[in-house]
Order: sequence, then C-alpha cells, then structure tokens
Amino acid sequence: MSSPESNSTDAAKRRAAVWAAAQIEDGMAVGLGTGSTSALVIEEVGRRVAEGLRIKAIATSEASQKLALEWKIPMSDFAHLPQLDMTIDGADEVQEGTLYLIKGHGGALLREKIVAMASKKLIIAVDPRKLVKTLGAVFALPVEVVPFGYETTIRRLEDLGFESELRVTDEGKPYVTDGQHYIVHCKLPQVGFDAYEAAAKLKGTVGVVEHGLFLGMASKVVIGGLEGIEVLEAAR
Amino acid sequence: MSSPESNSTDAAKRRAAVWAAAQIEDGMAVGLGTGSTSALVIEEVGRRVAEGLRIKAIATSEASQKLALEWKIPMSDFAHLPQLDMTIDGADEVQEGTLYLIKGHGGALLREKIVAMASKKLIIAVDPRKLVKTLGAVFALPVEVVPFGYETTIRRLEDLGFESELRVTDEGKPYVTDGQHYIVHCKLPQVGFDAYEAAAKLKGTVGVVEHGLFLGMASKVVIGGLEGIEVLEAAR
Repeated sequence: MSSPESNSTDAAKRRAAVWAAAQIEDGMAVGLGTGSTSALVIEEVGRRVAEGLRIKAIATSEASQKLALEWKIPMSDFAHLPQLDMTIDGADEVQEGTLYLIKGHGGALLREKIVAMASKKLIIAVDPRKLVKTLGAVFALPVEVVPFGYETTIRRLEDLGFESELRVTDEGKPYVTDGQHYIVHCKLPQVGFDAYEAAAKLKGTVGVVEHGLFLGMASKVVIGGLEGIEVLEAAR
Repeated sequence: MSSPESNSTDAAKRRAAVWAAAQIEDGMAVGLGTGSTSALVIEEVGRRVAEGLRIKAIATSEASQKLALEWKIPMSDFAHLPQLDMTIDGADEVQEGTLYLIKGHGGALLREKIVAMASKKLIIAVDPRKLVKTLGAVFALPVEVVPFGYETTIRRLEDLGFESELRVTDEGKPYVTDGQHYIVHCKLPQVGFDAYEAAAKLKGTVGVVEHGLFLGMASKVVIGGLEGIEVLEAAR
C-alpha cells in the first residue's frame, strides 16, 4: 500500500538505523531515542540483544520505553546509570555542513536532550530528507514551556523575535509532553540567523524549559541513502 | 506563646505588608506572592477588597490562591489578564546595596518568576532579617529542575561549581513543586561571585527549569522595621 517514495525512505531509515545500532558495544549503557527512525534502531538493538548483546538502556520517551520493553531490551534509569556511553536518536533537521540539529517534532525534546547530555557520544540516524540548508526554514522549532502563564511566555518569545504558536491536539487542547509541559512552535528568523544566539535567548526565557536546537552535541550523523549510508563526524 | 523576638518580626512583616498592599490602586491587575509576608499582604488586600477596592489577581502558588479566595479576592488567570500592573511578593534574601533577590525557599520560585515577569512593577515586602551582605552566604539557592534525569542535572550543576543537593521531604522523598518539578539547593560560590553570571549558567543548564535569583526585577523593596518602614527603589 505504501508509495515507492515512502518505501525508499523506509529503506533509507533502516540502513541508518542498522549502522547506528551496530556502533553499540557489549557492556554499554545506551540511550534510546524517539521517532520513526529510533523505532527501527530499537528493533535492531532488540535483535542484537536476542543474539546475546549485553547492554542497559534508558529511553527518551514513554513510547520508546514501551517499545524497548517489547523488544526485551534491559531498561534502567539514572538512579542506576549515572552516565551513558552512547545515545542513538533521530532528528527532524540536520543543517548541511554542520552537525546542528532540530529535534522534538515528536514532542520528546526535553528527555532527548537530558539523555543526550548524559551520554559520552550522541549518534543521530536520519534519512536524506532531514538535511536542510538552514534550520527552521520549513518547520518551526519546538520549545517546551511551563503550562502556568504560557500565554505570557509566548508573548515574551514574540518580543524576542520568534513568531510563536501553541501546539494543540486535534481536539484543540494544548499538547502535553511526557514532562507535563506545553510545546510552543517558534519560527526561527532566517535572515542573519545565529543558531547559538537563538538557543541562548530561548533557554534564557522565563517559562521556557528547553528548546529543540541541539548544537555541539552530535558526535556523528548517519544518513541512510538509496544504496548505502553517509556518516558526518564532528571535528573534535 | 511567641517569643518577643518573633513578635517583633511579625510586626515588622505586617508593617511592610500593609505599606505594600497600600500601593495597589483601584482597577489594577495584581500578582499575589507566596510566603509568610505575602500571606499578610493577601490579608491586607482582602481587607481593602472588603472595603470596596476593585482588583483582579493571580496567585503565585496553590497555597496563595486558596488564601486569596478565603479573603474573597477576585481571582483570574493569564488567559484573561495578559499583563499585571503590580505584583507584591516576599523574598528570602535581599542583597544590601542592590535589589538583587533570592526567592523560592517556599518552593514557588517558578510561578513567582513567571508572575513577576508578567508585571509592570514588582514590590517586595520583607522584614530586616532578609537583608544580607552577599546572596547565598547562609542559605543555598533553590533551583527548580526536571524530575527525569535529575541525578545527571545535579552532576552538571556540580561541574559548574555549584555544590548541589536535592530537596527532600521529612519522609526523605523528593520535594515536588506546584509545577511537578524537583528543587535542588545550590551553594553559591562566595569568592568572586557574579550574580548575573551565576544566573545565566544555572538557567543555561539542560534540566534546569528556573532558579531563585531575581536580578533586575524588583521595582521597590519595602523593609518593615520596629517603628516604621524603609523603601529601597530601583534606579530607573
């Protein structure tokens, strides 16, 4: 029933997912991401665990936690794993020529960022459609905000130059994250855009918990293609 | 039953509270703070409302909301009041020679800061014991953090130079704020301490929602004394 296009995207995602999952070594503490490519990573990790790979994992969302348990991946938490060796996650956008990411269209940016910060390495698996010339040119940036007074937080974000809109469900109610916060979609200004400056402004805003700009965090980005993969590495 | 000392502190708090409540004008949208001095402010505002003062108010905590309703103060929310004319709140510390504050020992710092940011004026009412030479010299700074991965957030706060400890209840469980977050007590370094630098570092930390440093926010601080009050004003 799928179109040839979605078939080729699925295949590309799976190639990236398989390569990323293969980076995990025996004994590692691993962070598991959220989203369609991360679901394929979890499936592949599950296969490797069934074949004898011994790891402990932490998931970045309730959905991924559930999926990982279905695949019988041994799950843990930060009370037992102070640091992770590697996190594998997807991304919504990767800016060409950088490892700058936008994450969080799936609504899990806060846990994704906390898990990524607790990891020695962050491997991002994507399909080629995620490569963009400039972050935020097409889709708005998800920003997680405190529900109390969110109307005033949105106004302050607008004052900073970000056109902002509350994410709502199909029923028109505020979308609520795993962390019981709301999501605001902020349009990133495209002219003279400075990603680090925008990140600092957003995080510095009272009422903002976290935003979906992941800068200087990814160690590698693997892009699944029609016939193979491409790996971008951070210059470190 | 109270000692003479606590009697004089209570009297000082009430003097500050009465002066602060007297700043409210008919028709204003008002933010109501949290804590023992704010409770006296709410009582005094309640008296003025009973005498005919027409205001609409927003509270900074569930506790203050309840108290304000008991005093029959007309309560509203940010869906109906986009901006407040004035917020009156207490503080845990006021640094001498500045209007720098530490707030949040009562656990309401996030809502207190959101309400303060939405207000044209912030009036702080305290007793003289709240005046300190340096912020954080005696008590640690409350920092509100996301429960998920709080162990890793604490470690990153320690890496930034803040000795950090989770606030727990008498039963040894994490203290949970109105916003469903945890509180970490961070010791502020006293040598070469730069309040704005510390504030930026704390708020910039992934997993931190907000901190109790209120800098450049107070319009006036009223200090109740044995016989009268003293008012500190921001140079603006």
